[in-house]
Amino acid sequence: MSEEKLLNRSDYKCFYSISTRWTDNDIYGHINNITYYSYFDTAINQYLIENTSLNMKDSPIVGYVVHSNCNYLSGISYPGIIDVGIVVKKLGTTSVTYGIGVFKDRENRASAYGEFVHSFVNRSKKKSVPIPDNILKSLKQILK
Amino acid sequence: MSEEKLLNRSDYKCFYSISTRWTDNDIYGHINNITYYSYFDTAINQYLIENTSLNMKDSPIVGYVVHSNCNYLSGISYPGIIDVGIVVKKLGTTSVTYGIGVFKDRENRASAYGEFVHSFVNRSKKKSVPIPDNILKSLKQILK
Amino acid sequence: MSEEKLLNRSDYKCFYSISTRWTDNDIYGHINNITYYSYFDTAINQYLIENTSLNMKDSPIVGYVVHSNCNYLSGISYPGIIDVGIVVKKLGTTSVTYGIGVFKDRENRASAYGEFVHSFVNRSKKKSVPIPDNILKSLKQILK
Amino acid sequence: MSEEKLLNRSDYKCFYSISTRWTDNDIYGHINNITYYSYFDTAINQYLIENTSLNMKDSPIVGYVVHSNCNYLSGISYPGIIDVGIVVKKLGTTSVTYGIGVFKDRENRASAYGEFVHSFVNRSKKKSVPIPDNILKSLKQILK
Repeated sequence: MSEEKLLNRSDYKCFYSISTRWTDNDIYGHINNITYYSYFDTAINQYLIENTSLNMKDSPIVGYVVHSNCNYLSGISYPGIIDVGIVVKKLGTTSVTYGIGVFKDRENRASAYGEFVHSFVNRSKKKSVPIPDNILKSLKQILK
Repeated sequence: MSEEKLLNRSDYKCFYSISTRWTDNDIYGHINNITYYSYFDTAINQYLIENTSLNMKDSPIVGYVVHSNCNYLSGISYPGIIDVGIVVKKLGTTSVTYGIGVFKDRENRASAYGEFVHSFVNRSKKKSVPIPDNILKSLKQILK
Repeated sequence: MSEEKLLNRSDYKCFYSISTRWTDNDIYGHINNITYYSYFDTAINQYLIENTSLNMKDSPIVGYVVHSNCNYLSGISYPGIIDVGIVVKKLGTTSVTYGIGVFKDRENRASAYGEFVHSFVNRSKKKSVPIPDNILKSLKQILK
Repeated sequence: MSEEKLLNRSDYKCFYSISTRWTDNDIYGHINNITYYSYFDTAINQYLIENTSLNMKDSPIVGYVVHSNCNYLSGISYPGIIDVGIVVKKLGTTSVTYGIGVFKDRENRASAYGEFVHSFVNRSKKKSVPIPDNILKSLKQILK
C-alpha cells in the first residue's frame, strides 16, 4: 500500500462519469462506503475493456483483485453524476496498482480516493503470470 | 398489475440515462435480473426529487413500494449507458403505478419493461394517505 | 403472471435461511425493494445447484430469468435472519414459474411474496430448449 | 493503516455467520471484491447494534466510515456460509480501527482480511466527537 495521497483531478490520467443510484445512498442519505469500490472497478475495467484485448469472460489471462482500499473525505449523495479518475501508480511484472479518485461534479478535490491492485493470473492453471504485452502497453499510457 | 406492454420509446414520457457498472454483470456476462429494479427506482426517485418537494429523508409523507415487476426481453451488458423511460400508467387516490422501460443506447425497442407501484404513507402513523397535491401535480405531467 | 397469492409458510415446499445485511436497509431503515429479488434468486439457484447438475458457469443449457415480480406486505430490517420459501407454481415445456415467499423469523405470514420465471436456453445457440430431464425431475419435487 | 496481518481465527474476538448470495458471484464465479466490504460492515454494525445503544437511524452521534481496506487471499463462492471475525485493533479518542477476517466454513486461515475505521461524528453539527462511553465500553470488550 502506498501512502501517497492523490487528492486532485490533476493527479489522474483518465476519467469516467458514473451516475449515482438511489440504492447507493445509505440510511444517512450518503453514498455508502461499499459503493465506492463499485465505482473503482467500473472505471478500471472500462479502461481495460476499451483499451486492451482483455475479455473478462473468455481471456485465458485475467486480472484478479488482490488488494483494495479507500479513504472517505466528504459525503456524496444520489442523485447526481460523479467523475472517477484513474492512474497507474505502480507497474510490476505480474501486478498493477491503480490510484482512483472520486470527484463530485465540477469539484477539483477528491471526495474519496483509494487503490486497487490487479494481479494477473492464468485462469486455468491458477498461476501468477506476467502482465500480457498489450495490457502492459495500455497501462503505461496512464502511468503516473 | 396491468397487462399492457409498453415496448417503445414513444410509450414513455421522461428519460434518464444510467451508466452500467461492472458488478451489474452476472456470471453470464449480462446485467443481472435484480439490477433492472435499481434502474427503475433510480429513475422514478430522480423524477420525484427533481419535480416535487419529496425529500426521502425528512418528508412526513413518503412513497413505499408495494409492488414491482419486470419482463426481460434481451440482454444488456456493461460497459455502456442505458436509457430508462418512465410514465404514469395509473393514478389512484393513494397510490401510483409507473411503467418503466429500459433501452439500449439508440434502440427504440425496450430490452426490459416493467411496473413499480408507490403507495403513499404517513411515516409516523404508518397509515395510507392521499397523494400530496404537489406530487399529484407532477405525476399528472407524465400520465400516459 | 398468476394472480394466486401464496401468503403462508404452508404454501411453500422448501426453505432457505438468508442473513440480512447492513446495506440491505434503505434510507427508511427497511430492506429496500430491490434486495428481495436477490433473496429470490439466491434461494432458487441454491435449490437448483444442490438438486440438479446445473452449473451456471459451464452448463450448455441454462435458465434465464424472463419475468419476476414482488408484492411487499410488511417491512423487514437488518439485522436478522429471514426464511425464503420456494415452490414451483407452473411447469411448462421450456420454462418454470416459481412462487417465492419471504418470512420473518418465526412468522407464518409472508412479509413479501412474488414470482420468478426461468426460461431454459441453449447458451451457445441462444435458443429456447426443453427443460433438461434431471432439472425437470427436481422441479417436480417442489411442484405445488 | 496498520500493516499487521490478522490471518487466523484466533486473531478475532467475535464472529458472525453470513450467507452468501447468488449475486455475490462475479463473472469468474467467485465472490466479487466489493461484496467483502458488505460482509465487513454487516458484521461490525451487528456488533454495535447488539452491544451498544447505537441506533443508526436516530442516534445524534454516529460512526462514519473514513477508511477501509481488504486483502484477498483465496476465492470464495456462492452457495455457502462464511464466518466473519472482528476485533478492535486500535481504539483512539474519536475513532476505532477494526480488523476483519473472512473465513470459509471450517477453515482456520482467512480467505480475506482487512480494516475498517469508524470516526464518530455529531450528526447535526457534523463535527468529530469522542466515542460515547457505552460504545467505548463495548469496543474494549473486543480489543485485541
